[in-house]
Amino acid sequence: MTDVLDGPTDAGELVIPSVDVGPEGQAVGWRHRHLLDVDDLSIDDIDLVMRTADAMREVLARPIAKVPALRGWNVTVLFYEASTRTRVSFEVAAKNLSADVVNVAAATSSVTKGESLVDTVRTLEALGAQMLVMRHSVSGAPYLAAEVFGGSVLNGGDGWHAHPTQALLDLYTMRSRLGSVAGKKVVILGDVLHSRVARSNIWSLTAAGADLWLCGPSTLLRGFEAWARRGAGGVQARRFHVTSSVDDALRDADVVMALRIQRERMASGLLPSLREYAARYGLTAQRLTAAKPGALVMHPGPMNEGVEIAADVASGVQSVITDQVTNGVAIRMALLYLLAGAAK
Amino acid sequence: MTDVLDGPTDAGELVIPSVDVGPEGQAVGWRHRHLLDVDDLSIDDIDLVMRTADAMREVLARPIAKVPALRGWNVTVLFYEASTRTRVSFEVAAKNLSADVVNVAAATSSVTKGESLVDTVRTLEALGAQMLVMRHSVSGAPYLAAEVFGGSVLNGGDGWHAHPTQALLDLYTMRSRLGSVAGKKVVILGDVLHSRVARSNIWSLTAAGADLWLCGPSTLLRGFEAWARRGAGGVQARRFHVTSSVDDALRDADVVMALRIQRERMASGLLPSLREYAARYGLTAQRLTAAKPGALVMHPGPMNEGVEIAADVASGVQSVITDQVTNGVAIRMALLYLLAGAAK
Amino acid sequence: MTDVLDGPTDAGELVIPSVDVGPEGQAVGWRHRHLLDVDDLSIDDIDLVMRTADAMREVLARPIAKVPALRGWNVTVLFYEASTRTRVSFEVAAKNLSADVVNVAAATSSVTKGESLVDTVRTLEALGAQMLVMRHSVSGAPYLAAEVFGGSVLNGGDGWHAHPTQALLDLYTMRSRLGSVAGKKVVILGDVLHSRVARSNIWSLTAAGADLWLCGPSTLLRGFEAWARRGAGGVQARRFHVTSSVDDALRDADVVMALRIQRERMASGLLPSLREYAARYGLTAQRLTAAKPGALVMHPGPMNEGVEIAADVASGVQSVITDQVTNGVAIRMALLYLLAGAAK
Repeated sequence: MTDVLDGPTDAGELVIPSVDVGPEGQAVGWRHRHLLDVDDLSIDDIDLVMRTADAMREVLARPIAKVPALRGWNVTVLFYEASTRTRVSFEVAAKNLSADVVNVAAATSSVTKGESLVDTVRTLEALGAQMLVMRHSVSGAPYLAAEVFGGSVLNGGDGWHAHPTQALLDLYTMRSRLGSVAGKKVVILGDVLHSRVARSNIWSLTAAGADLWLCGPSTLLRGFEAWARRGAGGVQARRFHVTSSVDDALRDADVVMALRIQRERMASGLLPSLREYAARYGLTAQRLTAAKPGALVMHPGPMNEGVEIAADVASGVQSVITDQVTNGVAIRMALLYLLAGAAK
Repeated sequence: MTDVLDGPTDAGELVIPSVDVGPEGQAVGWRHRHLLDVDDLSIDDIDLVMRTADAMREVLARPIAKVPALRGWNVTVLFYEASTRTRVSFEVAAKNLSADVVNVAAATSSVTKGESLVDTVRTLEALGAQMLVMRHSVSGAPYLAAEVFGGSVLNGGDGWHAHPTQALLDLYTMRSRLGSVAGKKVVILGDVLHSRVARSNIWSLTAAGADLWLCGPSTLLRGFEAWARRGAGGVQARRFHVTSSVDDALRDADVVMALRIQRERMASGLLPSLREYAARYGLTAQRLTAAKPGALVMHPGPMNEGVEIAADVASGVQSVITDQVTNGVAIRMALLYLLAGAAK
Repeated sequence: MTDVLDGPTDAGELVIPSVDVGPEGQAVGWRHRHLLDVDDLSIDDIDLVMRTADAMREVLARPIAKVPALRGWNVTVLFYEASTRTRVSFEVAAKNLSADVVNVAAATSSVTKGESLVDTVRTLEALGAQMLVMRHSVSGAPYLAAEVFGGSVLNGGDGWHAHPTQALLDLYTMRSRLGSVAGKKVVILGDVLHSRVARSNIWSLTAAGADLWLCGPSTLLRGFEAWARRGAGGVQARRFHVTSSVDDALRDADVVMALRIQRERMASGLLPSLREYAARYGLTAQRLTAAKPGALVMHPGPMNEGVEIAADVASGVQSVITDQVTNGVAIRMALLYLLAGAAK
């Protein structure tokens, strides 16, 4: 076992267990410099992320959940949208790896002075940023950042486009409960149209062989039917299902993931009232009985309890929503670790 | 001397001196998991906090004011109200104990997306929070948090209800100057009605045997006369005085603590103008002469100089306001240390 | 080589190379407790900052860009104005020296409750701040802070008055490219009137013997002609040039520094439209041909590309704008190090 950094480990701290490391110290098989979406990850890549996350779960279970893997690294967290869980998850993940974390919240920074994204990214790199975690309301913004940034860009959510760390933690959570998702019926329920979580999950879940179903009001599924028929990446074997029928979707499901309804979408006319949405698409205990016994209940958070998910379902025995959050830290530690290894 | 954590201490750093530690490494006698208010602290508990704070003052006096007691602990600071001194005080206290600190300011986080407090607390725990320092505008909010949080909750101020770390640092400051507060006349002057500082101080000062006087305009003392007659906790021995007469209150006082007048209260009609308030209840050098020579002047901050306290009094030789701030760091270090020991 | 702190260095970390250190561990020759402006720095002081920054550049080039020089020091960053680059630069500099950094953004803190600056500074000191980095919209605010603060105040920009770390990093950047600025023609182009960057640069560049030219619309040069004739500090040898002619300014220039046009100045009537400003004073590739071949292009950032500087010039081969940012970290590390040594 070798650390990704040459430096000595702190006394009393162990290095990360059970990740294979090559002669140059890099994690074997990881070749990506950035994590922009899951669509360009092979199933081997995904497996490596999952195995590395297993190692990170072991670290998190220690009395002192801290390893020196990224000691002295500068991880800059640049968020153009408000966030608690994703921002804190990356921050905790980086600190658990002993990195120095710099937070830049765009709303309270001179980014609001009208500086271009490219300038901001170049400036942060010149200030020492080696890993750039980024959330932006514009789809594709992290791709632009990756073009000019000399280190690694991690997409923490861009517009409606992608939220790759969320998709990876979702898959990790399913696997740790179900063993494998191949052939398992996984339902994503809700406002698919505006959801970067749904889009990234399409890539990873079809890659992993899940029987994926997207369900919601037809106005919130526009364009997904054609995608479903082509399959993810235009690959026939990676087709999935799209339906407005909650009954069809939930029947014998192994996993049901409810998506957040964003109240600001109401104004668009795409959604009925919140009350009507809850009545027709909300994940209630009654509806959940149509799924397999013990089917997993998931939600990317933050929840509107009583709207897209009933409070008793969210905190019920089938819910793994809290696991998702904890696994999110492990997944982000794994990704920071793998990307740092590739950068070296 | 043993550290609360099994891990090795950093080279060259000493562990905290002079706190008694039992065979399991816990601080002897501390049994509380949370610090929500001072009303359930026994006088022995309070004494233990004070003795531990003495040890922390020794740490603060070192060239490098840092000990490894909470190395690897995640202390999350969740503030729903703006604050400088309390937020920074907890942050510095936690860092002095080598903890990792995560700041979540509700105004700039997705907490504003309408996520419930319970969800936020559960999420922060799943993200790794082991100690949760919390300020909230709603009285009782930290109690709700403590019901669902698996670690320790420290109340950093909730509505008008309680501010226990402030009361403990106030008591510590008085004791370090006066030896003991038993039988000493302590006056709290100002807007008692809206003050969580006053409410928490009632519990700790009567427990410590002080001769406590609350003084202010009668509109800002409503309900306190009845409480004063019953005594804190309904205990006759812990009765205190309530008066609108500044003369009666200040006469031969050992300690005078002025409370902040919040300008936004003006609209409520409970207060006269600021000018009239200053004239009738402001702590001036002239008024202070009624107190004992050398009586201590205190204020929880931030001050409105010229309103509830005159600038020359605030910075005068009797003022211990700066001591309060420094002692606040020591008290919060002590509480984090004791709660961490109890959690183990 | 001895560290400024007595404490042991972390295993595997080296101390800062090549700064001369006296028998008491202090940097030889540095006598300032605060850094408020460059106007009271001697040329020897400036040379020492530059040499120390050279050492810090070596640290920044290491795999782990971290030294224990300020281990256990509390560096508090108090910003009353939004900022990304300066705030992050100080934060990274302090963390590279292993200091603990406390961020206080006035807009989101109780500073907005109306507490006076003096109270805030006293409170931060009582909370443990040993170095106070400060940005304020009011010229002179850091001088007031320095009067009451027991540690070191570093001015991170005050109103139109001064931005000393910017001037020092500008000079450092010029020197590292040109060897010396003595006799070199340096042009500062743009809104000189509202620029603290320009004001601080007048002091350091004339001290270093540069042939300094200020250029911009005459409405934005008011008062500078008289200053130019007197010379900086009233010293004849430190006179400089002021002109509204871009042709005169740029002819045979060695360095051209464009200043940010702040859009909010438009309302003042002092500026033509942005379009007209760009046409008449914007630094374009065409205009730059009047300067010496290979003349350096600089900008303090953030840039309005297409207004005061053309995009192709900003990212062209003559641009050292990114160097300025990186050198800014080295300069701030040097200053924190020197001030810490003087405090000891």
